Amino acid sequence: MGGGVYHALQRNGGLISSRLGVKFRVSQVAVRDVSKSRPVDIPRARLTQDWRAVVENPETDIVCELMGGVTTAKAVITTALKLGKPVVTANKALLSACGEELFELAKQRGTSLYYEASVAGGIPIIKVLREALIGNRITRLYGIVNGTCNYILTRMKLEGADFSAVLADAQRLGFAEAEPSLDVDGHDGAQKIGILASLAHGFWVPPAQIHTEGIREVTPLDIQFAEQLGYTIKLIAMVKKFDAGRSGKTTRIQVSITPTLVPSSHVLANVNHVFNAVLVRGDVVGDTLYYGRGAGQDATASSVLSDIADAALDLQCHTEQRVPAFVPHENDGEVVKIDDTISRYYLRLSVVDKPGTLARIAALLGQSKIGISSVIQPEGHEGESVPLILMIHDASFAAMSKALTKIGRLPVIKGTPVLFRVENFE
Amino acid sequence: MGGGVYHALQRNGGLISSRLGVKFRVSQVAVRDVSKSRPVDIPRARLTQDWRAVVENPETDIVCELMGGVTTAKAVITTALKLGKPVVTANKALLSACGEELFELAKQRGTSLYYEASVAGGIPIIKVLREALIGNRITRLYGIVNGTCNYILTRMKLEGADFSAVLADAQRLGFAEAEPSLDVDGHDGAQKIGILASLAHGFWVPPAQIHTEGIREVTPLDIQFAEQLGYTIKLIAMVKKFDAGRSGKTTRIQVSITPTLVPSSHVLANVNHVFNAVLVRGDVVGDTLYYGRGAGQDATASSVLSDIADAALDLQCHTEQRVPAFVPHENDGEVVKIDDTISRYYLRLSVVDKPGTLARIAALLGQSKIGISSVIQPEGHEGESVPLILMIHDASFAAMSKALTKIGRLPVIKGTPVLFRVENFE
Repeated sequence: MGGGVYHALQRNGGLISSRLGVKFRVSQVAVRDVSKSRPVDIPRARLTQDWRAVVENPETDIVCELMGGVTTAKAVITTALKLGKPVVTANKALLSACGEELFELAKQRGTSLYYEASVAGGIPIIKVLREALIGNRITRLYGIVNGTCNYILTRMKLEGADFSAVLADAQRLGFAEAEPSLDVDGHDGAQKIGILASLAHGFWVPPAQIHTEGIREVTPLDIQFAEQLGYTIKLIAMVKKFDAGRSGKTTRIQVSITPTLVPSSHVLANVNHVFNAVLVRGDVVGDTLYYGRGAGQDATASSVLSDIADAALDLQCHTEQRVPAFVPHENDGEVVKIDDTISRYYLRLSVVDKPGTLARIAALLGQSKIGISSVIQPEGHEGESVPLILMIHDASFAAMSKALTKIGRLPVIKGTPVLFRVENFE
Repeated sequence: MGGGVYHALQRNGGLISSRLGVKFRVSQVAVRDVSKSRPVDIPRARLTQDWRAVVENPETDIVCELMGGVTTAKAVITTALKLGKPVVTANKALLSACGEELFELAKQRGTSLYYEASVAGGIPIIKVLREALIGNRITRLYGIVNGTCNYILTRMKLEGADFSAVLADAQRLGFAEAEPSLDVDGHDGAQKIGILASLAHGFWVPPAQIHTEGIREVTPLDIQFAEQLGYTIKLIAMVKKFDAGRSGKTTRIQVSITPTLVPSSHVLANVNHVFNAVLVRGDVVGDTLYYGRGAGQDATASSVLSDIADAALDLQCHTEQRVPAFVPHENDGEVVKIDDTISRYYLRLSVVDKPGTLARIAALLGQSKIGISSVIQPEGHEGESVPLILMIHDASFAAMSKALTKIGRLPVIKGTPVLFRVENFE
């Protein structure tokens, strides 16, 4: 990532200067191993292994932390902020874990922490939320924020292929890590949606409070059934603001990331391959959407350059805290427990194909006051068990889970039920 | 529009203050007729018909020009800028006609002119181009920037209806003006793409240099044929940067707005109804897209509030020209003549259905070295003439026009040939 930023600055630094009247110079680059060969040609004299010397160098005006990881990165950032130096970071894992503390430190030291590149790569979603939509209360935020998952789901849909086959191919092509869990189990997306939720609602949302599901359970069959019903399966991260309760004071939000069926005609359904998108609904502006590459050193470099430009303008104008990095404006907000959230669902069961099966399942759902909106019993499946797909009306996750437990105990049910959300963006 | 901004400020002014630490008060509202009844309840004491008194009032820190039109609006803006007061405007017609002059005046007087709401309503495309993508050279920019045209084309596609029938209905519903020419003939979109082109490339692009076509010639038949070929017809405004010529100095760009076939799977093809979208390709970030409502007082109010917030922060920080409104950084740029632009085309002819017709047309195209990539001769059409659709490989508009003139003279051709661009976003 550092190489991408260095390269982009070499290429377009002059352009930024001519537009903004600020000049940049990469004074030093701290790396783990100066002797390693690099795809970007950085003069040997600028390389060092001593990050502390770089940060503390009086000639360093802006510190860019592009190393990733948590321990050293945190030391770099806190050292810089304590010296009152603005920091630009792309480190979502660190922000997700320690954002509140780092923003507070920046504020105390009269400087700022810029983090456009930490969420959704080249999409300027942080600037949009902090500045462009400043006049809006954010009522909904939906994101496709993990490029690896979106790439896998897109290829599964286009090719009718299995998750594991596409994952293996994605790993071969470099679109997925050898250890894919961070991406495919939803943790990376949860970190990102947590940052966006915090920013939109003004209180810090830690990953532990985010209901997180990955895409391992999605099968070509699900994608195909969803398509028949007019939907496309995406890994959707979401933040939903609940209507104010009786107290009227507390901001209550749902924050989650789950495989979700979205209408195929919706613009989010058409965000494909490694692209990311974030749909933001504001109470004034209505629906707006931001789309771009969510990863890759170039897309990320674009966001880092934007932050560097802002940091430089703020230094030049002596306005280091012009737009606060993160403002805790709704300290009494809370994340609603997933059990208390309401959604429509797609439910796939493996059932023994004999008369009365559907009636028994429907009866159990009915007992929990859960309504069925449609049923698919696809033809052409034979064997001990066959798939049965139910589309479920709005129900709380608690009621749904309870009903599923009962359904799972029926002798006609084989294997584990698969449950995805259905989102119509109402 | 003024009412929408007033209402939004009443509703969310406190939120903006809590986020940014700046307080707003609408001190006075200049209107044409104070006695007129308004949908928004503005205290009578704040209303006046004397705009000059409002602008010159020492208590007025920021002037918002939301009246539209050119003459008085220009007087309001120049009066404010001459007093060194920042101006927020939503006036694309005025900017399109006099932007260069107004930006220069703002610069001279040490203040700024904010214009987020002038293009694409609630989409923060101005901030994106001025700030978020500051590290990029913009190589392509494609916009659906006229909500009326997009609404009409969307309904024509969904309902198979005629242009004139949908236009009439759109007028009844308030989605189109009684005098629709500004919208449906492409002039409104041309003003907007001109502003975006100027901003992206750093030299002023006047509407006269923008090749402008509207959507009156699009028929349900075209939409249906396009669909068969995997395309959707949209009114696409575009800015394309040409590779540097031999001199290597001059920036040459194409700026146009034309009905265009875009692949139905592309995200722009799925921007429907009154929504707008702008796809920006940067040399660092790749493709990014911004989507939202392009008109309506609420969407526009969101952009005006963002500008007011920036203006207020800049006043508070004494950084009135932190990000220059418009920087002429490539003064030697030029707009390429439409004759010299190259595109693929969709060509619909009305021909007499007899043997040898296609051969004669193909021969004339061949003489001009224009290649045909596919042909549709739909069945089920009878009568004196039948439609013939040709998809044309990359050709210059000059060559295409010349060939069309010759083809039009063939006795087998009835009526005027219809020519649309085809864009694959390569």
